[in-house]
Amino acid sequence: MSVAEKGPIRLGMVGGGQGAFIGAVHRIAARIDGDFTLVAGALSSDPERARASGLDLGLDPERCYESFDEMAKAEADRDDGIEAVAIVTPNHMHYPAAKAFLESGIHVICDKPLTSTLEDAEALAALANASGKLFVLTHNYSGYPMIRQAREMVANGALGTIRLVQMEYVQDWLTEDLESSGQKQAAWRTDPARSGAGGCIGDIGTHAYQLGCFVSGLTSERVLADLTSFVPGRRVDDNVSVLLRFEGGAKGMLWASQVAPGNENALTLRVYGDKGGLEWHQENPNQLWFTPFGEPKRLLTRGGAGSTPAAERVTRIPAGHPEGYLEGFATIYSEAARAIRATRSQGKAPDSVIFPGIADGLSGMRFINACIRSSSSGGTWVEP
Amino acid sequence: MSVAEKGPIRLGMVGGGQGAFIGAVHRIAARIDGDFTLVAGALSSDPERARASGLDLGLDPERCYESFDEMAKAEADRDDGIEAVAIVTPNHMHYPAAKAFLESGIHVICDKPLTSTLEDAEALAALANASGKLFVLTHNYSGYPMIRQAREMVANGALGTIRLVQMEYVQDWLTEDLESSGQKQAAWRTDPARSGAGGCIGDIGTHAYQLGCFVSGLTSERVLADLTSFVPGRRVDDNVSVLLRFEGGAKGMLWASQVAPGNENALTLRVYGDKGGLEWHQENPNQLWFTPFGEPKRLLTRGGAGSTPAAERVTRIPAGHPEGYLEGFATIYSEAARAIRATRSQGKAPDSVIFPGIADGLSGMRFINACIRSSSSGGTWVEP
Amino acid sequence: MSVAEKGPIRLGMVGGGQGAFIGAVHRIAARIDGDFTLVAGALSSDPERARASGLDLGLDPERCYESFDEMAKAEADRDDGIEAVAIVTPNHMHYPAAKAFLESGIHVICDKPLTSTLEDAEALAALANASGKLFVLTHNYSGYPMIRQAREMVANGALGTIRLVQMEYVQDWLTEDLESSGQKQAAWRTDPARSGAGGCIGDIGTHAYQLGCFVSGLTSERVLADLTSFVPGRRVDDNVSVLLRFEGGAKGMLWASQVAPGNENALTLRVYGDKGGLEWHQENPNQLWFTPFGEPKRLLTRGGAGSTPAAERVTRIPAGHPEGYLEGFATIYSEAARAIRATRSQGKAPDSVIFPGIADGLSGMRFINACIRSSSSGGTWVEP
Amino acid sequence: MSVAEKGPIRLGMVGGGQGAFIGAVHRIAARIDGDFTLVAGALSSDPERARASGLDLGLDPERCYESFDEMAKAEADRDDGIEAVAIVTPNHMHYPAAKAFLESGIHVICDKPLTSTLEDAEALAALANASGKLFVLTHNYSGYPMIRQAREMVANGALGTIRLVQMEYVQDWLTEDLESSGQKQAAWRTDPARSGAGGCIGDIGTHAYQLGCFVSGLTSERVLADLTSFVPGRRVDDNVSVLLRFEGGAKGMLWASQVAPGNENALTLRVYGDKGGLEWHQENPNQLWFTPFGEPKRLLTRGGAGSTPAAERVTRIPAGHPEGYLEGFATIYSEAARAIRATRSQGKAPDSVIFPGIADGLSGMRFINACIRSSSSGGTWVEP
Repeated sequence: MSVAEKGPIRLGMVGGGQGAFIGAVHRIAARIDGDFTLVAGALSSDPERARASGLDLGLDPERCYESFDEMAKAEADRDDGIEAVAIVTPNHMHYPAAKAFLESGIHVICDKPLTSTLEDAEALAALANASGKLFVLTHNYSGYPMIRQAREMVANGALGTIRLVQMEYVQDWLTEDLESSGQKQAAWRTDPARSGAGGCIGDIGTHAYQLGCFVSGLTSERVLADLTSFVPGRRVDDNVSVLLRFEGGAKGMLWASQVAPGNENALTLRVYGDKGGLEWHQENPNQLWFTPFGEPKRLLTRGGAGSTPAAERVTRIPAGHPEGYLEGFATIYSEAARAIRATRSQGKAPDSVIFPGIADGLSGMRFINACIRSSSSGGTWVEP
Repeated sequence: MSVAEKGPIRLGMVGGGQGAFIGAVHRIAARIDGDFTLVAGALSSDPERARASGLDLGLDPERCYESFDEMAKAEADRDDGIEAVAIVTPNHMHYPAAKAFLESGIHVICDKPLTSTLEDAEALAALANASGKLFVLTHNYSGYPMIRQAREMVANGALGTIRLVQMEYVQDWLTEDLESSGQKQAAWRTDPARSGAGGCIGDIGTHAYQLGCFVSGLTSERVLADLTSFVPGRRVDDNVSVLLRFEGGAKGMLWASQVAPGNENALTLRVYGDKGGLEWHQENPNQLWFTPFGEPKRLLTRGGAGSTPAAERVTRIPAGHPEGYLEGFATIYSEAARAIRATRSQGKAPDSVIFPGIADGLSGMRFINACIRSSSSGGTWVEP
Repeated sequence: MSVAEKGPIRLGMVGGGQGAFIGAVHRIAARIDGDFTLVAGALSSDPERARASGLDLGLDPERCYESFDEMAKAEADRDDGIEAVAIVTPNHMHYPAAKAFLESGIHVICDKPLTSTLEDAEALAALANASGKLFVLTHNYSGYPMIRQAREMVANGALGTIRLVQMEYVQDWLTEDLESSGQKQAAWRTDPARSGAGGCIGDIGTHAYQLGCFVSGLTSERVLADLTSFVPGRRVDDNVSVLLRFEGGAKGMLWASQVAPGNENALTLRVYGDKGGLEWHQENPNQLWFTPFGEPKRLLTRGGAGSTPAAERVTRIPAGHPEGYLEGFATIYSEAARAIRATRSQGKAPDSVIFPGIADGLSGMRFINACIRSSSSGGTWVEP
Repeated sequence: MSVAEKGPIRLGMVGGGQGAFIGAVHRIAARIDGDFTLVAGALSSDPERARASGLDLGLDPERCYESFDEMAKAEADRDDGIEAVAIVTPNHMHYPAAKAFLESGIHVICDKPLTSTLEDAEALAALANASGKLFVLTHNYSGYPMIRQAREMVANGALGTIRLVQMEYVQDWLTEDLESSGQKQAAWRTDPARSGAGGCIGDIGTHAYQLGCFVSGLTSERVLADLTSFVPGRRVDDNVSVLLRFEGGAKGMLWASQVAPGNENALTLRVYGDKGGLEWHQENPNQLWFTPFGEPKRLLTRGGAGSTPAAERVTRIPAGHPEGYLEGFATIYSEAARAIRATRSQGKAPDSVIFPGIADGLSGMRFINACIRSSSSGGTWVEP
């Protein structure tokens, strides 16, 4: 697959210091295909931890910055400055950090959800669109080959007219009051000041929604949500039930939960049309179930018989050799690399390069916002 | 398990003649444990077909009746008359048929949903409660041993306080306009005059709802439904999305569909509490997934390690020898037999005998009615 | 499916009294399709228990016999005597019991393995072939619809030339020394005097072998076996590893075990040819995996898209409504009923009626005998 | 997990040029944890291709060598020379290449099987043992976390005394005569001159054998094999059936095939003792089934409840986020990195670092050789 073209792209990182989860994931993802080399970081909002984390990772001490502002300015001034930055902070810092780098002419790869408020999201979208720089949002699940294949099959009509989009993202790690225990991940994700008004809806519901839209090619026109905080004292929702109506008459349901014991990371997508159906489970991501109506169900596999071009272009190894979460995540990075390289030479990325961007981020924030509005009003239909 | 006690119980049947599906299922179910013997029938609304169907089944010609009214009267007058009748007609005939037999002092085993209208249901409930006779509703899925075990585990607190009840019943056989082809099953099930105002919601949604309530022990206080007829020209709903709020704060979702290609009879139940979760799939009914929060997931099997008394008392054969749909259905019949025998001697059935009855039937009809009301009003919360 | 033709066939039973497992299974299987009615029995080798067991089942007291010899003679003399007998004793009694009934002109339905010794098997085969009566061996797994379909697909060339037949039958119930605890099933099955020289190989290995031959249509020419008794003090094998060479060059492996914790009744068959492969698991018997080489794997289901005539003729209910072990077993009985009725009118059963018979029983005994010979000689190739 | 300690280790590669499969896998595996940096290569036996392949990968032109001999000498002379070399050629070149680097004082990471002949293997083992350098054999499947956990559980007695080790490695890619089509992978793997006398037994059978021994901790004392070449004209075996006897009385079976349609890379391991059983499937490597005898089966997951230290130390991301083949492979590299660093400072690797080495390689070659001997003699028991 992806191969370095005149050497790897110089990458910086904001957030992701000692004790972080997603930062380490981004670093492996950036490394798998050899397209990026991490050369600079402002890895924590705590200056001391930021520096220590950078040294841990073997960064040049002078490129271990104490703040992202400092980093954006300093790197923009270097001949060998970073070309792209990965923003992996809690949600509320996405906007100011992204702003600083876009304004310094540096491409942005940003974790989801886009921001912690819809206002920030709209401002960032305007900024990103005007900047001329790439904005890549790591809705990593859209990097899985079989998700690419599902999307392509829907687009090619294998399912006929889409009628139903059923989305689930179910976990159990917040079944109890983990945030009070001091667990870092739980603490910021359940803190509205850092996470945004949505808890489960923003953390994982938005992944499921993005996946459903990505694969079906549909846009939702109306949503009705029932958000619940089951754990006493929790300040954000930990369970989300949503009904959706899509353009053209398709319907959908979305269930996201962090309090369903026995579910680790059960992201599931089912799409049905008048000619066939698809089913995919993130925990076994190399498989895609496809049933043309009236025929036996088929088990499509990554790299196996029945693979489509969209899957094959993001596949690294043969069928039966499972690719996982990190490879799917890496595909977002390798697509970003292709886009960055194409931008250098042609000014923009070709259509064949597919990654979630600023529009998806804004759409996700509108979805979160609409679900919260709907639920707050007792469960009514609202426009996202 | 069940053994004949002074010989099998004499059974009659209304409906279920040549070409019917569910009538044949009832006959096998009644036979499996040897508790019933079919001796009379009014097997079709068409007199000629009724008689021919009875002769096919080897019934005594004089007990092949041309109408259920005739049968109720004649059998009530015989010394060797039927003790119970199985009503397996289209829904709109459940009420008049059940009325005739209850008034003749004959126990009733009736297919679901209870009736085709809520008015009929309420009238029938009043009648049944006053009759002193048994009324058994064949929500057959509640006969599966692992469903019995799930219910018992919930009741015993294995899941803690229930938070979530997720119900699905998904099929694909009505993906196209089958009713126009003359297929008998599709024709009556999509005809409001015979099926009732609900299509998918009444045919299968009500099964999922009954199962969710049966296992969780909860009653829903509010529902919000979005019913759709995807197939052009179809007169009833073929896809149903429902949000539920249960007493005590639990939430739920219910999805029922007959237009989701790749799903044959995918009835699924997932229940989650603050201490654990359960998951069950009808197409592999001998398994029940159980996760005590914080421990590995366990695969409980019918007859296997971890079986509970409620499962064992309705289990026929050892673990690994799958029991199926017919055995689950037969359990409703064997429970009915136990209840009938106990009624003879003690005047009523003991608490250990468990079967869906008139109250469940009325509750199901209220659920159907509420979903239709909710959906008709654009998707609002209503009381069932 | 099967329907009574001029009333059910009168059936007697030898063995299967109080506390027995397989006798109860035979009785349900005989009842499911309404083809048989149990009217006589010699249900235990203990006369008192034989009588009590018959009364329990509601048999006419005068047809509760104290020995099979008495029963064979008395029933042969009755105008309403039994037409067929089910023999469900421990293995060593199959031969004398079958002999008594065949000589009395009564059809025999016999549990497997055929006998406890090869000598008995050969004598019984000669007798059965000369008798003009039907001999049905309840290799029940060959009654499963998807096994019928697999056999038909192989015969029709869907797999091309068969190269590999992989058979497994794995249980765990004898992992410890259960026979010393007094458990009745374990006691006789591990007693060479009642079970025969083979333990696991005779009890379940022979089922796997029959299934492999039934589906592949192949006959084995050479086998090499390694039999082990893992549990100290056990007098028969509890684990069996076999290599097989079939006519025409196909190869196979067979693993049967009763000491593999985590396996309840894991009978598995995989068959591969130069054009495709099939895989089937008894614990989920309604599914059959089929892969035409170079195409995606397909999940064929009982009653679903892709069903073949051989499966449909033994299918009772629609796809997605699981049939189980008892229905598969019942199919052997309904095939027996068809054969008996055809024999009445035409003198023999039509080719379309498929059941394991005396030749299969003899072949199974030769297989058991060959495995024991091979293993005793240290693991050499022998002819079955 | 693993983090660069004073920068990545300098790595060279032999083989793995344009069009190769496993070379690219090694490069990603070496990159994932950031422990290695590829700086030199002799990437093909064809000098021109070797150079072009190196330039493609962005190597310094002067370190794109035309032969491994040249590379070994030149790199040994450089101050910044490679510390380790990855050998990813066809099997027959493993020995001469490994010899050259070991003699130059460079650690060796070598693909499996160790060599193409047992003689070469014995010579290489002597050489490696005398060299004082590390020899790492990439039996990559032993890098999977759940395999580590299985091994630890067996060692800790969770299964009691091991009785049975059942190994399978089943593929279908050589069902037809692919080697005649010019497909590069098929061509060398079926050429005895490059692959060795064993085909399927060497390519994949040896992986299954290594895994069975690695997890069970047992050594086989006797094997009996039946090797087949099903595809006309094929010069090596494409299907392998093996019976095994382990020290202490355990038994085993091993089936490896490349001609079983419907199997992509179906490596399966099942281990049973007198107290419990384990089951693992490579295509879903994040799961491990565990049954303590007499209790329900448990689904252990990577990173989930029930994880053991041995699994956790090689786990990168949380439960439910699947790790795949590349991560398992990368663990062999990260273990190698730990061993190399420890060797620098302490002269040897600590016991906690676990990787297959020269002894495993020699054991694998003896297994291959024994299987060929056994099969050639008609299927007799031989010592490996």
